[in-house]
Amino acid sequence: MDVVKDLCLTPGLYGSEVVLMDTDEESLGSVKSMADTYAQAVGARIRFLKTTRLAEALKGADFVIDTALAGGHYEQEAVRDAGEKHGYYRGVEAVEFNMVSDYYTTFGAYHQLSLFRSLARAMEDYCPNAWLIDVANPECEAGTLLTRKSKVKVVGYCHGYKHYKDACGVLGLDVGEVDFQVAGFNHNIWLTRFEHDGRDAYPVLDEWIRRKAERHWSTHTPSDEFDIQMSRAAVDMYQLYGLFPIGDTVRGGSWKYHYDLKTKKHWYGKFGGPDSEIGFSRYLKRLRKRTDTVLALAGAPKSALLSEIPPVKSKEDIAPLIDSMVNGERRRFVLDVRNDGLIAGLPDDVAVEAPVWVDRKGIHREKIDRIPPRLFKLALVPRLVRLEFAMEAFLEGGRSVLLELLFRDPRTKSDEQANRVLDEILNLPFNRDVKKHYG
Amino acid sequence: MDVVKDLCLTPGLYGSEVVLMDTDEESLGSVKSMADTYAQAVGARIRFLKTTRLAEALKGADFVIDTALAGGHYEQEAVRDAGEKHGYYRGVEAVEFNMVSDYYTTFGAYHQLSLFRSLARAMEDYCPNAWLIDVANPECEAGTLLTRKSKVKVVGYCHGYKHYKDACGVLGLDVGEVDFQVAGFNHNIWLTRFEHDGRDAYPVLDEWIRRKAERHWSTHTPSDEFDIQMSRAAVDMYQLYGLFPIGDTVRGGSWKYHYDLKTKKHWYGKFGGPDSEIGFSRYLKRLRKRTDTVLALAGAPKSALLSEIPPVKSKEDIAPLIDSMVNGERRRFVLDVRNDGLIAGLPDDVAVEAPVWVDRKGIHREKIDRIPPRLFKLALVPRLVRLEFAMEAFLEGGRSVLLELLFRDPRTKSDEQANRVLDEILNLPFNRDVKKHYG
Repeated sequence: MDVVKDLCLTPGLYGSEVVLMDTDEESLGSVKSMADTYAQAVGARIRFLKTTRLAEALKGADFVIDTALAGGHYEQEAVRDAGEKHGYYRGVEAVEFNMVSDYYTTFGAYHQLSLFRSLARAMEDYCPNAWLIDVANPECEAGTLLTRKSKVKVVGYCHGYKHYKDACGVLGLDVGEVDFQVAGFNHNIWLTRFEHDGRDAYPVLDEWIRRKAERHWSTHTPSDEFDIQMSRAAVDMYQLYGLFPIGDTVRGGSWKYHYDLKTKKHWYGKFGGPDSEIGFSRYLKRLRKRTDTVLALAGAPKSALLSEIPPVKSKEDIAPLIDSMVNGERRRFVLDVRNDGLIAGLPDDVAVEAPVWVDRKGIHREKIDRIPPRLFKLALVPRLVRLEFAMEAFLEGGRSVLLELLFRDPRTKSDEQANRVLDEILNLPFNRDVKKHYG
Repeated sequence: MDVVKDLCLTPGLYGSEVVLMDTDEESLGSVKSMADTYAQAVGARIRFLKTTRLAEALKGADFVIDTALAGGHYEQEAVRDAGEKHGYYRGVEAVEFNMVSDYYTTFGAYHQLSLFRSLARAMEDYCPNAWLIDVANPECEAGTLLTRKSKVKVVGYCHGYKHYKDACGVLGLDVGEVDFQVAGFNHNIWLTRFEHDGRDAYPVLDEWIRRKAERHWSTHTPSDEFDIQMSRAAVDMYQLYGLFPIGDTVRGGSWKYHYDLKTKKHWYGKFGGPDSEIGFSRYLKRLRKRTDTVLALAGAPKSALLSEIPPVKSKEDIAPLIDSMVNGERRRFVLDVRNDGLIAGLPDDVAVEAPVWVDRKGIHREKIDRIPPRLFKLALVPRLVRLEFAMEAFLEGGRSVLLELLFRDPRTKSDEQANRVLDEILNLPFNRDVKKHYG
């Protein structure tokens, strides 16, 4: 609903038609009725339409926003359970630099990656000039897949980078006076520029680490499981790689932070971060509650709707991004785009995340200030390896690539264990086609 | 002694002076006396000199051959034992794509890499135009280190690639009619061309795998622990990566082949390959015996020397390589050289292994036929990551890089275990300076 609301609050987009598409007719109907009510309530000249058919949604579109999770969290959790059954704490997808619970790149990602691919193919047929704005995970894999296998214009958007503001808050820096730049892969981004009032602010961070961090860790109670920007893990990663990790990046890192719940709590605070069994179930519960609350508003009077979803722009960048592309107001966004030399040394045809400037002419890169060699070699290239495994598995199939990933997983003790967990996952009822793909 | 013998049997090099250098005066004396006797016996006009001082050996040299192992196998085995004490089967250096027992790149490599660096520095002073021919491990790390940090001209030489001939033998192909090409990193090379009588011979290999391999594995008794070119592991790697692995490459691969002795025996035959506890102790024993036998020949009459070391050129390429460089006979060698685009997609400043043509003008590359994308992404880039860890650890120091390697090791179960094994290694009596370096 945030996107719907933001569109309604962006006069530059008035006159647009927004086609809502979902295969679930009931929830589609609810969202449509709320969107209509909302538009009317705030006087937005946006026409909402609905359809369960992709082709209908795409015909003539200028922008396509993808927020889908094929199979939903239910399937993700089933894949995780299958992994835990065979000794893989938090599931087989919990691996180095990708320790993020709703970011399946291989074992549980076939349907999601297939969805990206069919969406892009349908766009090539029905709206070949439209922009695809992907906010669905895994964004790094999605962007890379479509960069390689489709002609559609695609950008990824993830709000995680905004957590640099948490750092400003704790360090006592006014966000408005801070100039920042991040770069890397989605969920693996690093603060390549951090200036306050025109001067490098890294020394402020260093000073905080030296004098205040220990006290912070021993007294601070995380506001929720995502409150980890200033955690021990973030500082440890900074000390190892040389730049401060931002947002979801902090959830990743290597096994050092993730061996078990006790380890996670040490590095991320009392919830063990968003990806521990505590953190992620809190997240899923909140997500369900929010969905229920919003859906319950369908048919509610305007006043109730406005009180639950106040007519104030959200902090999400999707409506402003479209606004900039359509109306030309030049704005800076952090997006996932084709690399093409933006991060030197990485292949051109991978999706990297970095700030770009957007106007009517499209997307304009800015030069990345600095990627320390150690960060490049010890964090970005290993993440690239994982990405390439995911691409290879999805595009070429073959059981051996998935097994090979397991052989490189610290929790695999034997060939048998690797084969058992893979069979368990491939035999899940919803994975019949996946099993066929991997053989 | 093979190099000494080959030099004596290469008339093109007659008139040369060869300075033998060793810090062990006794064994140096023995080798010198044997070399003199040998030269006299075969009528070679080569003058052998000896010294324990590096500077003296280098002054005015045209070629420098490095065969040293700092600390010897004794220190390597002590590092391995320290690892096994904390749950690291075959030591902490046994990791993906580098499962080679005398190929320490990080935990046990500080003295060896230091030796390479000081040798190169001394060469810059005493013989800046000489070629360094490195046959000491780890060659990939040595070549890369010197490529990045020294001005001396360096090539690495490893005879492992010659095992492609074993494949020809088993497949019934006349080696003389086979055209081959290998490429990759040292101990991670792949058969990029395999032609018999002008036609692709991969189908012959495929046919053998389909019809004869199982029988071979169930009936063939390895002649020694290095007889693994046609093992299950080699075929499995071929099936996964798309090219046949050659020589020491087969010893590597991922944990799938290396979990324990039983696993190693399955993939490599009854000795479990050269890197199992059986295979490597056989190798060390043989090495000791050979050294004892050769050293015992010091002072023996010519006839005894010639009977133990018959005057027939060995299969090693070092003397022919120098001969080609000096006298210009154009020959093809497989060497480790600076990449500079030879394998597209890898950094320029890493040492890669590939065939090159050598004449008086130097080293000339040939185009590599094909590196399948999967091989590049799933085998070469992961090996590159390991190389970069080694460079980072050696050049920048810092305990955290070594620990980070351990966190990515399947055998590490906790932060404590990683710290314990690292302390154990750094506290070895011969590692005082290493401990200081890593802090």
